[in-house]
Amino acid sequence: MRAFQRYGLEHIVLCPGSRSAPLALAVGALIEESGINAYTAIDERSAAFMAIGISAASGKATIVITTSGTAVSNLLPAAVEADRSCLPIIFITADRPLRLKGCGSNQTVNQEDFLVPVCREVFNCPSIGLHEISGRSFFTLVKKTWEKAHAYPGPVHLNIPIEEPLHASFLEQKEVCNGWKPLNFEEIQLPISTVSTNTRIKTKEVPELDPSQPGIILAGPWRGKPSQLLGFRKAVKEFQSFTGWPLFADCLSAITIKQSGLISFWELLISAQIFESNDKLQVLRLGPLSCSRALESFLRNTNKKQVLITEGEERYLDPLHLAKQYSGGLQSWLKIFKSNYPNLNNNLVNDDTNILEDLLNKNQLVGDLVDKYLKEDSKITEPSIARKLLDLIPEDIPIMLSASSPVRDFLAYSGFSPFKRRLYSFRGASGIDGNLSLAIGLSIFLGPLVVVCGDLAFLHDSNALLLNQPKKYPLIILLIDNNGGGIFKQLSLAPIFKGSVDKLFSMPQSINIGDLAKAHNIPFRTISSFDELNSALEWSLKLSGPVIIRACTNSEEDTLLRKNITDGLKKYIN
Amino acid sequence: MRAFQRYGLEHIVLCPGSRSAPLALAVGALIEESGINAYTAIDERSAAFMAIGISAASGKATIVITTSGTAVSNLLPAAVEADRSCLPIIFITADRPLRLKGCGSNQTVNQEDFLVPVCREVFNCPSIGLHEISGRSFFTLVKKTWEKAHAYPGPVHLNIPIEEPLHASFLEQKEVCNGWKPLNFEEIQLPISTVSTNTRIKTKEVPELDPSQPGIILAGPWRGKPSQLLGFRKAVKEFQSFTGWPLFADCLSAITIKQSGLISFWELLISAQIFESNDKLQVLRLGPLSCSRALESFLRNTNKKQVLITEGEERYLDPLHLAKQYSGGLQSWLKIFKSNYPNLNNNLVNDDTNILEDLLNKNQLVGDLVDKYLKEDSKITEPSIARKLLDLIPEDIPIMLSASSPVRDFLAYSGFSPFKRRLYSFRGASGIDGNLSLAIGLSIFLGPLVVVCGDLAFLHDSNALLLNQPKKYPLIILLIDNNGGGIFKQLSLAPIFKGSVDKLFSMPQSINIGDLAKAHNIPFRTISSFDELNSALEWSLKLSGPVIIRACTNSEEDTLLRKNITDGLKKYIN
Repeated sequence: MRAFQRYGLEHIVLCPGSRSAPLALAVGALIEESGINAYTAIDERSAAFMAIGISAASGKATIVITTSGTAVSNLLPAAVEADRSCLPIIFITADRPLRLKGCGSNQTVNQEDFLVPVCREVFNCPSIGLHEISGRSFFTLVKKTWEKAHAYPGPVHLNIPIEEPLHASFLEQKEVCNGWKPLNFEEIQLPISTVSTNTRIKTKEVPELDPSQPGIILAGPWRGKPSQLLGFRKAVKEFQSFTGWPLFADCLSAITIKQSGLISFWELLISAQIFESNDKLQVLRLGPLSCSRALESFLRNTNKKQVLITEGEERYLDPLHLAKQYSGGLQSWLKIFKSNYPNLNNNLVNDDTNILEDLLNKNQLVGDLVDKYLKEDSKITEPSIARKLLDLIPEDIPIMLSASSPVRDFLAYSGFSPFKRRLYSFRGASGIDGNLSLAIGLSIFLGPLVVVCGDLAFLHDSNALLLNQPKKYPLIILLIDNNGGGIFKQLSLAPIFKGSVDKLFSMPQSINIGDLAKAHNIPFRTISSFDELNSALEWSLKLSGPVIIRACTNSEEDTLLRKNITDGLKKYIN
Repeated sequence: MRAFQRYGLEHIVLCPGSRSAPLALAVGALIEESGINAYTAIDERSAAFMAIGISAASGKATIVITTSGTAVSNLLPAAVEADRSCLPIIFITADRPLRLKGCGSNQTVNQEDFLVPVCREVFNCPSIGLHEISGRSFFTLVKKTWEKAHAYPGPVHLNIPIEEPLHASFLEQKEVCNGWKPLNFEEIQLPISTVSTNTRIKTKEVPELDPSQPGIILAGPWRGKPSQLLGFRKAVKEFQSFTGWPLFADCLSAITIKQSGLISFWELLISAQIFESNDKLQVLRLGPLSCSRALESFLRNTNKKQVLITEGEERYLDPLHLAKQYSGGLQSWLKIFKSNYPNLNNNLVNDDTNILEDLLNKNQLVGDLVDKYLKEDSKITEPSIARKLLDLIPEDIPIMLSASSPVRDFLAYSGFSPFKRRLYSFRGASGIDGNLSLAIGLSIFLGPLVVVCGDLAFLHDSNALLLNQPKKYPLIILLIDNNGGGIFKQLSLAPIFKGSVDKLFSMPQSINIGDLAKAHNIPFRTISSFDELNSALEWSLKLSGPVIIRACTNSEEDTLLRKNITDGLKKYIN
């Protein structure tokens, strides 16, 4: 543990168990000596999600330690998200020594295989037991583990057979606590079996775009390292100023309000066919595709070149198979681009000026119309939360959107507000699992945070409420309660299946959220208007630790509202 | 779904999601037409554990249906347990079609790999999409899936790419609902890729024992199919009557009180060295090894032949590497055994009579002494719950013990009571996860049930309380609350690590269980004596659905009590 700390480790999440006791003791020593941040958790699933929340905010790997057996299998959901979101995380799991494997020994399973499908690397320590590894080998292992988790950020699994569980010998535990004194970090041959699971695909070709011709820039959800973000923003500004292309930015893109050419209602503009794709448009796509069916159609109808730039993610990220991908990051691509167009300067203006001006005007009109639907009424709806929430919260407080419904509404209706602060969401695998734990992880690093969460995502991860949580500042959970699976009501299944759609798809829960909050000693309020939401936010910002604010919405009415907005836009503008 | 029903499918657990909608609609049609039992669940982890609970009780596979993405990864913990416990279960997961795989498409991950480490077989449907598979191929697939789950019982994963999620075409959904009409179940070539993950190891040699020489029979936790149980019990009786060997039966062995030669306090007899292993003893071991360190030492000091018989489990089950294993089941082994000893008859009496009589006497003495420690006081302790609980519950009600502490105390202290009814526990991977869900699954099939659960196991699986639960009969959750991780207090870590042991190992939870119960509208009582426990049990047996009875114990006092009992036994008997 001390060795990991030398590389920059700051946070450890510990899921206690008897087999992992020596590891826990090492953590204990570290807490005492160096003030590393350690958290304990019962449920390894929540623990792992919390850890990737911390990693997402810090850009550095968090370590999760578990005992042997099914404990390891509970890490998989978060490992999947870390793989897809490219977030560094190190799972250290205690295992039985080889002599006890494959022979029906208690709590002994083939756990070394469980995370293989999603890990950058799985390291298996010597099968005889941890005590057999030398100090030097150990440090080399630590180095490799840390590097693997950060080079192409993602999950790494370090499986450590330990001879005896809690009944371990005094000597062995002394060794774990103290034995790993700093040595030279030499590269020596490791007696460790490794499984390489993800091969990186090197992009050789650098795809080009023509800055003298029209185009648009699409910025999808940000999926780079925190350290790359400033350079990325600078490069976006530079490219946009060269080309004058409009920028369709996802609310999760980490683009700021200072960016010129920013079109905030692009999703509505294209879904209401106010702005349609045409043969002339080139597309520069940054990162993953935003979650929008309208955008998919739009891109399919755009026949010019599409270039997709990722910040180090070398897996192909275009589900439409239209773009050529360059994985070396926007800054690097822009450098090559500029060397190809040496006469570019900041005053270059091309045909696109008209397109941009036209779009900026339309964006303004759409915004005004959306406000008529969503701002004039104090009633709480899912789209109006997306439109108005951010303006009620101080701009220095980051927001996290849970997967599923909230993130889609924010993409469509939130306007310019998201670009005034960081919005987080975990879109790697877009699971509804682990969302509260992720928020807790973010807030451990970032401080005060608001998480907007649907009721199914909230309940799926209710064990997050058992986590060691931030207590010094507020973590506001805005629970949008549409009584289970409202997302399914947005579709008309009735003609297809005569049975009860509700019985199969909506999952109204009999659970009383107020009592659940009380059980966890978490302050709780239910609100039913924006006035109440406003005062609830003011109240909760003065508290410490988690607060739950529950807003009840009606998913059928909201589905109708979304349709009315799109229809209204079509009529008004066309 | 209809096809599976023809093979005997009775229970489906559905975790709704948009991608899996066509599958859900098929289930819906089935519910309407044939009254199959379907349950919905938010959390796939709990859903899968509940399903293996149903499978454990019924002996037939339950189907779990989930949507794509991390949903699939949440199935792994239960899949691990099903693999190790040899319980049939079929996971049907919706997936994206191949054209959307590996290209950053939303909620699209390599889910076909997630369950490979533990599944008997993983079937991947045609990558183009479900609609491309013909009726015949489909039925062959169903047949293979069902057979694979039952032949060597365990988990099977059927991953089905589906072209469109909820927005699916009318035609495609019609097809899923109605198109799979019964056809001839011909064996035709399947356009399906399969991954075979577990190879069975065939035992050829039949290990022998000498019935004229002394020995003992060890019956570990039962791990056969329910249909094999009666034959197994008959064979145990027969072998015991031939040899007169004493039977050390695990409380989970499914052995009945009618069995002769039954030694109920064998764990205490050997841990207090009242009965020691000697050179003369042969050992017939049935199923997995009981979870007892004393037993491990005992077996290591027994130098004669050890034969291990499993009921179809062909993985080697002896962590001590002392036994020769025969995987064909006890009945089959006994048949071969009898053909080797044609002169055996039921009246054969060998040298072992003395050993058996001596042990039966000592067993009685130990029982009397244990009762002095555990029966005279009405105070609730973990050992006294193990000793007295079963006598307070009608014998027709089965009991489930959660993994961790309860099962160890029942092994040591419960005496003859466990053999008067079925006791269940999931000892395949012995995880503390999923225990409440498993209990709910058992009770769906078995009716009224009592589950004895530690507080960490209870909280780890608190999402089980969100499951569709049995409402017609009581499901009593006896929560033994030692305030988190009392098991670690049984060890003396203090001399090793100067830091706070409690901080790392015990996890006192601030959650209020009464409020949690209230949130789920579950009747709740806290009790502090056996008199109160008795009346709480009477009260709860009249209710319908889950009831929580919380008994607070003191883990430090209980550790001392266990030590006192063993010390007292040593003094009294030796």
